[in-house]
Amino acid sequence: MKARAAVAWEAQKPLSIEEVDVEGPREGEVLLQVVASGVCHTDAFTLSGDDPEGAFPCILGHEGGCIVVECGPGVKTLKPGDHVIPLYIPECGHCEYCASPKTNLCQSIASTVWTGYMPDGTRRFSKNGKPIFHYMGCSTFAEYTVVPEIALAKINPAAPLDKVCLLGCGVTTGIGAVLNTARVEPGSTVAVFGLGGIGLSAIQGAVMAKAGRILAIDLNSDKFEMAKALGATDFINPREVNGSISEYIRDLTKGGVDYSFECIGNVNVMRDALECTHMGWGVSTVIGVAGAGKEICTRPFNLVVGRTWKGSAFGGVKGRSQLPGYVDNYLAGKIELDKLVTHTMPLEDINRAFDLMHEGKSIRSVIIF
Amino acid sequence: MKARAAVAWEAQKPLSIEEVDVEGPREGEVLLQVVASGVCHTDAFTLSGDDPEGAFPCILGHEGGCIVVECGPGVKTLKPGDHVIPLYIPECGHCEYCASPKTNLCQSIASTVWTGYMPDGTRRFSKNGKPIFHYMGCSTFAEYTVVPEIALAKINPAAPLDKVCLLGCGVTTGIGAVLNTARVEPGSTVAVFGLGGIGLSAIQGAVMAKAGRILAIDLNSDKFEMAKALGATDFINPREVNGSISEYIRDLTKGGVDYSFECIGNVNVMRDALECTHMGWGVSTVIGVAGAGKEICTRPFNLVVGRTWKGSAFGGVKGRSQLPGYVDNYLAGKIELDKLVTHTMPLEDINRAFDLMHEGKSIRSVIIF
Repeated sequence: MKARAAVAWEAQKPLSIEEVDVEGPREGEVLLQVVASGVCHTDAFTLSGDDPEGAFPCILGHEGGCIVVECGPGVKTLKPGDHVIPLYIPECGHCEYCASPKTNLCQSIASTVWTGYMPDGTRRFSKNGKPIFHYMGCSTFAEYTVVPEIALAKINPAAPLDKVCLLGCGVTTGIGAVLNTARVEPGSTVAVFGLGGIGLSAIQGAVMAKAGRILAIDLNSDKFEMAKALGATDFINPREVNGSISEYIRDLTKGGVDYSFECIGNVNVMRDALECTHMGWGVSTVIGVAGAGKEICTRPFNLVVGRTWKGSAFGGVKGRSQLPGYVDNYLAGKIELDKLVTHTMPLEDINRAFDLMHEGKSIRSVIIF
Repeated sequence: MKARAAVAWEAQKPLSIEEVDVEGPREGEVLLQVVASGVCHTDAFTLSGDDPEGAFPCILGHEGGCIVVECGPGVKTLKPGDHVIPLYIPECGHCEYCASPKTNLCQSIASTVWTGYMPDGTRRFSKNGKPIFHYMGCSTFAEYTVVPEIALAKINPAAPLDKVCLLGCGVTTGIGAVLNTARVEPGSTVAVFGLGGIGLSAIQGAVMAKAGRILAIDLNSDKFEMAKALGATDFINPREVNGSISEYIRDLTKGGVDYSFECIGNVNVMRDALECTHMGWGVSTVIGVAGAGKEICTRPFNLVVGRTWKGSAFGGVKGRSQLPGYVDNYLAGKIELDKLVTHTMPLEDINRAFDLMHEGKSIRSVIIF
């Protein structure tokens, strides 16, 4: 079938709105109508050419709100009309990762998802016979896309897809890192570095965990208003601090924060985030994605005195089992999404979403098909 | 009073056996007769001059088996004749660290312990009127020493002091890192890097935790025999491995170990220890003490995919509450100490203990007074 899509023909170039061919679903696959898609920094990172796994031409997008159109052979848990969110980390239910309560990193189709192919090693998108790569197993910058059944979370159809699409990446990542990975306790002091969509969601997570004090840190003070609206209690612009930000935070909090989260992808900030935590029990969680080849460093003494350095991908959330609960929490008013959608636009204007993001003017733009 | 002691007059010089003056205990302090003392790599590290906190002249030694001789004013929990192990990490019972179940790092007297003074800022050792620094709050290379009450674990008097002195540092550090810090679970696969006193004790801890497979790693294959006797199941000499040791271990264990422990103090090995753990849930614990200014590094992706980097000091063991239980476990045959004592000698031969250690020929030498 034909579908309008934003094609990234090559890195560092604007996306091109095209009519592409979408092949129907094969065994275990599902054809989806994309109703809405968030535009995330990870899309921009790949488009920049800095992502070593980026393969072009491709159809980006991985925060989708979708409706099932057609199920391929063998699909048992979904039917046309179901509302779903595509998952860039699937949940096959059978591998050793799915069997472990400690991780969400199902590896069943990792070798194809991250190289731009469907699990059978082929592709469903093409233009004039030339194949186009998938992206993160989702490719939601297209009217229609094909995703494996094991990478689809079936959600409450009452939820507005142009809002809950954000649960496909950033918001779940931020909230989940707080609740699942770090397991912040009531009364804790929490520091969140970087107030983009993930950082603001980490603040939401800290509020849900009943943290006692939530420090919001960003170089752009304009972002403090939203952080405050979501529940942050202290606001720090490192440009206004003399000397080390980790030392400043340790002084401010009489020893350091109990939990910190790096939501930027800057290895120097990751170090600050670790070192601003409290001796004896501080836990720092890396969420941001750093550039290729970048490394984090610290003196090992900082760990020996009782700090812990962790990381989180998709908030440690097992997509098929746990994501539907996030949607329900949104519907119950426990998770804020509406305020995070700063811009909506049709697919034709998608390059404006990237421009707004680069200018630091959006939390999330949502493409409405 | 007078006491025979091994004085470190300056770095990199042999210890000198002297008769020194020991002042009696002040408020909250206890005068001890040292019956036996282990000789640990940390003593050698400070004597080497590489320890930035090393202050000379000093009396080294921090693995003591002691008997209370005299209690200063205000001491309530000890009396002459009690058997005790001095603690370089005290347990005051009142500070925020003692109040937390997450840490053993009581900070009540940290500012003096690590600079070579008693809590009141003075010293009890001198020679011809010239004061001598304390070391780690213990200074067990002397017939008599003075230690604050809050830094003394009262133990079962049935325990032989020339064995349980090893619980004052290395053995407890290794076992505790496994049981308290990493909390290894039954059936886990564990890698221990470095088979000195701490590494062998980490192996003991892994056996106590009912680990299913225990990899012992050392550049000196002679150490594998003892590791095997204590319960290790696999033996790896990195000199016999082509390429990356972490990759080798990930291949050997089909994805990586569940838990790893660095028991050397080498920042490159700390990185290998992290990177050989399993994606999704691997936990690596730094135990070794690195040289001044050294840093650990890794790509943040290694954390984002679910690995955790931790550290442990004195095995996370709260000394006054938990160490007596370690002594009881030794008496009950659950902790091996006897095999770890490879040499015993009188104080006069203490420099031989350092020579044996540098030659890699001892696990622990114990000085018998």
